[in-house]
Amino acid sequence: MTPDSSNSPAETVPLPNPAILPTIKSPADVKNLPEDQLEGLAAEVRDTLINSLSNTGGHLGPNLGVVELSIALHRVFNTPDDKFVFDVAHQGYVHKMLTGRADKIDTIRQYKGLNGFLLRTESEHDCYGAGHAGTALSAALGMAAARDQKKEDTHVVAVAGDAAFTCGPTLEALNNIAETTKRFIVVLNDNEWSIDKNVGAIAKYFNALQTHSAYSAVRDKASEFVQKVGGESVRKFAHKIERSAKNLLFPNVLFEKFGLRYFGPIDGHNLELLVQTFEYLKKQDEPVVLHIITEKGRGYQPALEKPGKFHGLGPYNVEDGATEPGAPTYSEIFGRSVTDFAKKDEKILAVTAAMPGGTKLDIFKNEIPERYYDVGIAEEHAALFASGLATQGMRPFLAIYSTFMQRAFDMIVHDIALQNLPVRLCMDRGGLSGDDGPTHHGLFDIGYLRHIPGLIHMQAKDEEEFVDMLWTMANYDDGPTAIRYPRGAGTGAKPKAEPQLLEIGKGELVQSGSDVCLIGLGSMFEMAEATAAELKKDGWSVGLINPRFIKPLDAELILSEARKAKVICTYEDHVLANGFGASIIELLHENGITTPVERIGWPDEFVEHGKPDILRANHGLTVENALAKIRAELPSVAASA
Amino acid sequence: MTPDSSNSPAETVPLPNPAILPTIKSPADVKNLPEDQLEGLAAEVRDTLINSLSNTGGHLGPNLGVVELSIALHRVFNTPDDKFVFDVAHQGYVHKMLTGRADKIDTIRQYKGLNGFLLRTESEHDCYGAGHAGTALSAALGMAAARDQKKEDTHVVAVAGDAAFTCGPTLEALNNIAETTKRFIVVLNDNEWSIDKNVGAIAKYFNALQTHSAYSAVRDKASEFVQKVGGESVRKFAHKIERSAKNLLFPNVLFEKFGLRYFGPIDGHNLELLVQTFEYLKKQDEPVVLHIITEKGRGYQPALEKPGKFHGLGPYNVEDGATEPGAPTYSEIFGRSVTDFAKKDEKILAVTAAMPGGTKLDIFKNEIPERYYDVGIAEEHAALFASGLATQGMRPFLAIYSTFMQRAFDMIVHDIALQNLPVRLCMDRGGLSGDDGPTHHGLFDIGYLRHIPGLIHMQAKDEEEFVDMLWTMANYDDGPTAIRYPRGAGTGAKPKAEPQLLEIGKGELVQSGSDVCLIGLGSMFEMAEATAAELKKDGWSVGLINPRFIKPLDAELILSEARKAKVICTYEDHVLANGFGASIIELLHENGITTPVERIGWPDEFVEHGKPDILRANHGLTVENALAKIRAELPSVAASA
Repeated sequence: MTPDSSNSPAETVPLPNPAILPTIKSPADVKNLPEDQLEGLAAEVRDTLINSLSNTGGHLGPNLGVVELSIALHRVFNTPDDKFVFDVAHQGYVHKMLTGRADKIDTIRQYKGLNGFLLRTESEHDCYGAGHAGTALSAALGMAAARDQKKEDTHVVAVAGDAAFTCGPTLEALNNIAETTKRFIVVLNDNEWSIDKNVGAIAKYFNALQTHSAYSAVRDKASEFVQKVGGESVRKFAHKIERSAKNLLFPNVLFEKFGLRYFGPIDGHNLELLVQTFEYLKKQDEPVVLHIITEKGRGYQPALEKPGKFHGLGPYNVEDGATEPGAPTYSEIFGRSVTDFAKKDEKILAVTAAMPGGTKLDIFKNEIPERYYDVGIAEEHAALFASGLATQGMRPFLAIYSTFMQRAFDMIVHDIALQNLPVRLCMDRGGLSGDDGPTHHGLFDIGYLRHIPGLIHMQAKDEEEFVDMLWTMANYDDGPTAIRYPRGAGTGAKPKAEPQLLEIGKGELVQSGSDVCLIGLGSMFEMAEATAAELKKDGWSVGLINPRFIKPLDAELILSEARKAKVICTYEDHVLANGFGASIIELLHENGITTPVERIGWPDEFVEHGKPDILRANHGLTVENALAKIRAELPSVAASA
Repeated sequence: MTPDSSNSPAETVPLPNPAILPTIKSPADVKNLPEDQLEGLAAEVRDTLINSLSNTGGHLGPNLGVVELSIALHRVFNTPDDKFVFDVAHQGYVHKMLTGRADKIDTIRQYKGLNGFLLRTESEHDCYGAGHAGTALSAALGMAAARDQKKEDTHVVAVAGDAAFTCGPTLEALNNIAETTKRFIVVLNDNEWSIDKNVGAIAKYFNALQTHSAYSAVRDKASEFVQKVGGESVRKFAHKIERSAKNLLFPNVLFEKFGLRYFGPIDGHNLELLVQTFEYLKKQDEPVVLHIITEKGRGYQPALEKPGKFHGLGPYNVEDGATEPGAPTYSEIFGRSVTDFAKKDEKILAVTAAMPGGTKLDIFKNEIPERYYDVGIAEEHAALFASGLATQGMRPFLAIYSTFMQRAFDMIVHDIALQNLPVRLCMDRGGLSGDDGPTHHGLFDIGYLRHIPGLIHMQAKDEEEFVDMLWTMANYDDGPTAIRYPRGAGTGAKPKAEPQLLEIGKGELVQSGSDVCLIGLGSMFEMAEATAAELKKDGWSVGLINPRFIKPLDAELILSEARKAKVICTYEDHVLANGFGASIIELLHENGITTPVERIGWPDEFVEHGKPDILRANHGLTVENALAKIRAELPSVAASA
């Protein structure tokens, strides 16, 4: 269904003077607003988002899609007593604006500004934070169970997008709702807009039927929604038949199997209908699901035209949505390289968990679609699926952000490493994520992988070496390999025309030295190099190592340089606890080397959001801090100076 | 449906001379066996299992349930070309017996004997190992995709129990089957025996209908299976209506939503029907699911009467199934204590992921059912659900084996710790699991938790201190806490009448010493104590620390003792990499203490199965090894000797 266009706000035309939004200081103000001003509020919210995010960047598309939903929720329910749990929570900007934070929306994702997701510490109206998908139903169910234990009568509303329903935790939660509580509202925010107006008409009919009269015979019709969940091929089939109204299938069967009463689909941009429906749903004494159809990017033409781009992005030109082109990112080099390798090697397959754009496996998808698998937001299945491929001699590359790979941790231990299967774990955003903040920083993967027997783990110092490492992984069939690589671009070092195989477990001695030994892992090698330059100016003899392998460490190289040094310094874009530097300390200790090791890396705390430079400076990931720590361990004058 | 009793083998009466089984050297022998000997083979397999496992222990009930299934699979398909992926794989004993390992079944779970699960390294017929639930469909789908890539025409059969369908990875996999391959067989091994004969009759009708004639109108009937998946309350309701045949609901709707053609349910002990059905299914060009009904413990009365006990157990008396009572285990003390605490504190809730027996939360379930939540095999949901409870001021105890808690790793990082929610993570089987082997050892939880900011992690030296720790966790609301505790009993130290609050981050100085500092974590404290006794005989002054807290470490205590010592030794029932001893080395290094640290713990490899004493001796987790390492760092004679 296409939401009724009569509700469309003015597109991309800034309102001269927002008059209503400034009066919304709390959800009470939403409730007290005269009904005829609600559409005006929605228009002002939308306009503010479009203009403000053009400066800060952010998740524009998803938030434009939930303007009416967020207003309707706050019109009907009472936070903080009632709870809204937003899945992934990147669509919480409107909620923030309606709960006293409209005047700070221009600070979103900026250091010390509003977080790009919900945060319990940011507002009493944010009852649950997120950043990873598929957690809302489970967490909300816990809140509902607690409410029932306390014999209170508040409401809990879980809001989740259609993509969240491919996700194990969501399905596990669905399976537990009916036995746990009688009072629970799920909003299925379905922003696939391929469903045409015929469907909408039927849907409205169903909704009216279900809301206002006896629940009736249509429930046995099967489900367009489930067809969509059923994956790409089924989706294509569904598109073919969608114009034939009598064949249309609705999700009610699936939800009703799980014991939830199903309502919808309804137009998620029709404020009056939303308010009316929520008023009805809050009176039900059984778990319910409301299926709403929304448009990602609603009200902003560039976002409607390129929903993928405008899902989340940096600053853009508000007139036409244009963004500045940047240097090729690690992700782009990854997508390009693995695709090129696969053209020469039929065993190479690509697996992604709903991130073809983010991981740039869309390059692979476009060029070798028959060997590309997008399994949806389903990291556990993705890892298991890749392990199954590997048992049959295939060479699967599994690309998942470092922070999301946490979902597949058990599979990496129990299925991949224990069986020594050559799955290639490609951990994008390994290191600081920046603006997205603590839900997205990839600062733990050395911690969660280093103790896994037999797992090879590496990080390249630049893009050239990165391609060599990927090529090395492609050709390594003796067990699992993992690579971490940072968000964005690196030094810009141009990959070789033909990639080169690296020796497993061998680091690179960039220069040998007898006073100081610097070991700079991956993206932090640059900082080690800069430190070396400063120390050499002082006359010190500086050893500089690019370790390449986190595991197995190149013990021979590291020990030989470390034995000579008066002080050692390690650099990593990772927490220090259970990190790379910790592994160096362990190695040296085992070999009787007691030379002091200074470590540059992230502290044992969750790192806030903000521009990487600011955060690095705050937490001592700087050349200056490294120099200060090293100099404190050195004599005041170099022997050779 | 109750499987037809006419197929029952003789119960508990040993066959005098197995005649057929010894002739089965490979699956080819199963295929070549005259049809009239198949039932005899089944009887001999069953008899051998009952007698042999009475000596070794093992998963008796599940294996008695799949005797006919395993024979039928090997009768119809050809391993190793065709692939059988058994979920959890504790039901693989019969498969082992039919693939050349019948003469070794008496070595199962014994050191150097057959593993209790499937192992790729044990046989070419074991295409995939497991030990954790819910992995079979995903892994098998990977194999099917690889088969399709290679344009081969072999078959892949995934066998999963009904419980696996509450599990996120299984549901994620279901969602991907239809779009990935056209040739895929799922066997749903449903061993809930509450379904009566009427159902069986109807089921047979459906099966006949679906197998031999046009697929017909019954497909829109809803699903008994889904009702079961729908949880306890729905299950009770389903039981009430199950005798009314016209109300019966079948799982076909759910599976067909996911694009699988559904067959069944059929009697999983009817060999002829199974063989006939598989012959039909292997010719289908669409993914299929076959729903079979089996009896756990089939053919052995004690196992039929106590299916929970005989799911997996140690040695038993073959006549009556009696087992030796043991000392109270940590699990029993856990279940008892948390139940007692909850009686005094209404905020305390218990959450388990399908393990009320294993974790002994069955005590809580029996005494306070209204505050007990069993969410099924759904560790991700369990952790999220607990986090939701914690946001509302409840005090949830989440009890999951250390190895299975790996499934919830992302939730511990992203939902629990990042939001600083006071969920109590109770990690049973923290440490070596013994007979179960590498899929079940809990040897990684310090590795995967120590780098998580703000997470408190502890382990008690004995049962008395364990209860104090649980009490401390119950009363700690400032953030998440985790406790690891070993399988089985400890020293037997009797808990206090009233538990005592421990100070967070404070260890226990058992004795101070100036030559050696021994730090024995949790269950390994005993070994440290024994080492201390030996060293004192030699005249050394020995410090002995019970650290209690893995994180935060009691830095003050540890540093003060370490500063005095000539050598330090740490003890942990965990891998050394990213382990407790590693954290001690890190602490000392940061504080400029260069005294050698010897570490006793597990090596950087997957530890095999076997009795704990054998494995500890093999890997140097002994007093003798500790003494040798320590003495090597000490002068030859004690100063005071």
